[in-house]
Amino acid sequence: MNIYLYNTISRTKELFKPITEGYVGLYVCGPTVYGDAHLGHARPGVTYDVLVRLLRKLGYKVRYVRNITDVGHLEHDADEGEDKIAKKARLEALEPMEVAQFYTLRYQEAMKKLGVLPPSIEPRASGHIIEQIELVKKILDAGYAYISNGSVYFDVVKYNKNYHYGVLSGRNLDDTVENTRALDGQDDKRSPFDFALWKKAAPEHIMRWPSPWSDGFPGWHLECSAMSEKYLGKTFDIHGGGMDLMFPHHECEIAQNTISRGNSGVHYWMHNNMITIDGKKMGKSYNNFITLDQLFEGTHPILQQPYSPVTVRFFILQAHYRGTLDFSNDALQAAEKGLRRLMAAVKDAPKLETASGADHSEEIANFREKIFEALCDDLNTPIAISYLFEVVKMVNSVKDKSLKIGEKDRDAIVSLFNDVVTDILGLVDDGASSSDTKILEGLMEMILENRREAKVAKDWAKSDAIRDRLKQLGISIKDTKDGCEWAVN
Amino acid sequence: MNIYLYNTISRTKELFKPITEGYVGLYVCGPTVYGDAHLGHARPGVTYDVLVRLLRKLGYKVRYVRNITDVGHLEHDADEGEDKIAKKARLEALEPMEVAQFYTLRYQEAMKKLGVLPPSIEPRASGHIIEQIELVKKILDAGYAYISNGSVYFDVVKYNKNYHYGVLSGRNLDDTVENTRALDGQDDKRSPFDFALWKKAAPEHIMRWPSPWSDGFPGWHLECSAMSEKYLGKTFDIHGGGMDLMFPHHECEIAQNTISRGNSGVHYWMHNNMITIDGKKMGKSYNNFITLDQLFEGTHPILQQPYSPVTVRFFILQAHYRGTLDFSNDALQAAEKGLRRLMAAVKDAPKLETASGADHSEEIANFREKIFEALCDDLNTPIAISYLFEVVKMVNSVKDKSLKIGEKDRDAIVSLFNDVVTDILGLVDDGASSSDTKILEGLMEMILENRREAKVAKDWAKSDAIRDRLKQLGISIKDTKDGCEWAVN
Repeated sequence: MNIYLYNTISRTKELFKPITEGYVGLYVCGPTVYGDAHLGHARPGVTYDVLVRLLRKLGYKVRYVRNITDVGHLEHDADEGEDKIAKKARLEALEPMEVAQFYTLRYQEAMKKLGVLPPSIEPRASGHIIEQIELVKKILDAGYAYISNGSVYFDVVKYNKNYHYGVLSGRNLDDTVENTRALDGQDDKRSPFDFALWKKAAPEHIMRWPSPWSDGFPGWHLECSAMSEKYLGKTFDIHGGGMDLMFPHHECEIAQNTISRGNSGVHYWMHNNMITIDGKKMGKSYNNFITLDQLFEGTHPILQQPYSPVTVRFFILQAHYRGTLDFSNDALQAAEKGLRRLMAAVKDAPKLETASGADHSEEIANFREKIFEALCDDLNTPIAISYLFEVVKMVNSVKDKSLKIGEKDRDAIVSLFNDVVTDILGLVDDGASSSDTKILEGLMEMILENRREAKVAKDWAKSDAIRDRLKQLGISIKDTKDGCEWAVN
Repeated sequence: MNIYLYNTISRTKELFKPITEGYVGLYVCGPTVYGDAHLGHARPGVTYDVLVRLLRKLGYKVRYVRNITDVGHLEHDADEGEDKIAKKARLEALEPMEVAQFYTLRYQEAMKKLGVLPPSIEPRASGHIIEQIELVKKILDAGYAYISNGSVYFDVVKYNKNYHYGVLSGRNLDDTVENTRALDGQDDKRSPFDFALWKKAAPEHIMRWPSPWSDGFPGWHLECSAMSEKYLGKTFDIHGGGMDLMFPHHECEIAQNTISRGNSGVHYWMHNNMITIDGKKMGKSYNNFITLDQLFEGTHPILQQPYSPVTVRFFILQAHYRGTLDFSNDALQAAEKGLRRLMAAVKDAPKLETASGADHSEEIANFREKIFEALCDDLNTPIAISYLFEVVKMVNSVKDKSLKIGEKDRDAIVSLFNDVVTDILGLVDDGASSSDTKILEGLMEMILENRREAKVAKDWAKSDAIRDRLKQLGISIKDTKDGCEWAVN
């Protein structure tokens, strides 16, 4: 099956051709671990997880590398300010690596809740200082970097004479002036466009390593070039990340790769779009900054209730990854309802009644084809989900007996749900674990029998009381002609 | 409160005096991540977790460093054979770091199940190559190492002339001959006692870094010296590990530290003893090698049933960490029963009936004192647990009304259970989560009411049927004079 991916660098959807048939190398920029995971982490987490799951379902062997930035990411991207992790460590009187450990575990935990599978390799920036130093040496040897007061800077001005600094983001060097501050004369840089490859550490700076130039630490952009080459080779298939990383981070990666490896290093650049909250950019200053735990626990003022991780995942997948995504309480409410309908059909499918002679195989095969076509069309999850709801309708028609299907049809529906809902979209029923479920189902059976007996005895007060008490426990029941259905809210 | 720890190096229990009042630096040797966590990992995991929890309860700020060995641990400790992780990677056609990532996550997951809190810092050997190279340089400069064909070896023979190689394990150099093979003339070492600080990589070796001596990788013993110094300083309080690591691993650490730091680096050496299974050493050749997952799932032939992680934790704590611990199905059965009795009392304590005028404050204070005394006496958890069962007896006496206690007594018991059972021993009820529990309790209330009504109506058949159906679901009920108690098995 052909996969098409929108390649940021060509601004077109391209047919995906792996470098080595059957294998895919994927690198995605991971978190800087100095605070709790928030909505801005959930989107790339889920997006590239679905990409990996889809590729694996289609038979590719994927090596997925997602880094942990635990050093070198300064407060201001322009090589100034304090290291984000060191600052947090200073404020909390901890060793920087205690901060990194704490938030790495929190991040991994949050991703796990969202159903995001762990990457194949999760390299730390601080664990690859040698590789970064070697890379700086190469760029220096090639003449595209200079040493200044113990720090090393990439010479963007020189680079831009021979190559295009801005090839990814579509900028020209002049456009970037707005993003850089004028040099104040104290700066070690020759030009404000240049960026740090190695920074000499101030005496009080804790995170430091020896290098040929100074005791210091690597520039932020360097780690991704060093670690992607180490684990995926000089040229690899796909590089993903949030759109906010396109400039300057990915642009700098390309410049580094071009000089050190002789090519930009990456065949397909993918960027997920940003999220907004009630139409506004998320930020501490907007008072709408929502961590994932706040979302899962419903403890942020804009939220009416907690939203389960799988609801958040489903909500993210209802939009295409290249469009902006607006989080609001209402939108999450709607996602929760839709997800419940989908998961009910997934649960009911294996138990559907079948009729001999009935045959909808063509229709179901067509749904499958459309769904995979959508997923392979630059990961169009909203279209894929809309077709899934056609299958949900079919399931519900069988349930209310307005449609008959054959045994093979049922099997095809179950297999489609398994492949797409469970394996690729990674949506799971967020109810209790299986042994708890068994107990719950057993107890409910006993209670509903009791209610049935009350009804047979025309003891309506009792039958209503049972319904009301269940409701108090958060269990709703619905009488059907075949008996009674129930669900935990 | 005074804490006494058995210091392996002095072979006596010593009063614990931290280097900096109020702070404790602790380093524990973690796993080599090339296979699933097994019983041999559970014991140090739980032992040092209880140490950290106790120290924190007593008001210490603990920095707990536990490493991940992802490079350098060769198949045979004597600097020969293949790297354990590289070998696994070769067999499974993976990048070594994919193997390390996979088993690191599995290990962390298993520790989490066992209630082992994550360490403050979890440094990787591969992430600290620079620090290890710097350490090799220091030892070379001091004249206690030599370069041979691109590898660097620690000169044990020279070291032993000025210091005692064997100070921790109590061996003399001559005793160690049995553990070393004769040199075959091909070896780069001057003496079979010497150990590798840096190994030149064979051409096919994937895990390699540049160094002043060769492209290669660090010797296994080096990482712990480098990482403990980096995160805990030149001298720190406690170093823990399994008894099997005492020689040669910890002995080599001491030799490295002595030369590079001027002292052995550690004030208190703690070693947990080994485990056996049905009286035999655990090993693949004995066919009794049990992974933690097999234990939790009951999938090993010697196990009659699954044992919950908290049962395994309790079982480990029932023995003193310096004694051997024999795992058997019968012993686990007994532990499970004991744990259930303890956790029932912990659950019942806050609901105990109190009587005005009753006062057992002295008795309860005495239990608390004895329990803390035991824990502070070189972590004597079996004695602490035996006193806990005295408190359990008290709780049960109040429940069966043979004893009356006051409100303050009840509060003191609850607080004792919180501090010791929950916080220090880390034992938690392994039942369902709180919201599930609420539903379960609500449904059980409805069902037991129904049974009560049947009994009042003398409908014994119905009342028995309810009991039997609950039993099938794994819920046992017990009639008491006040009504009916129930428990999920």
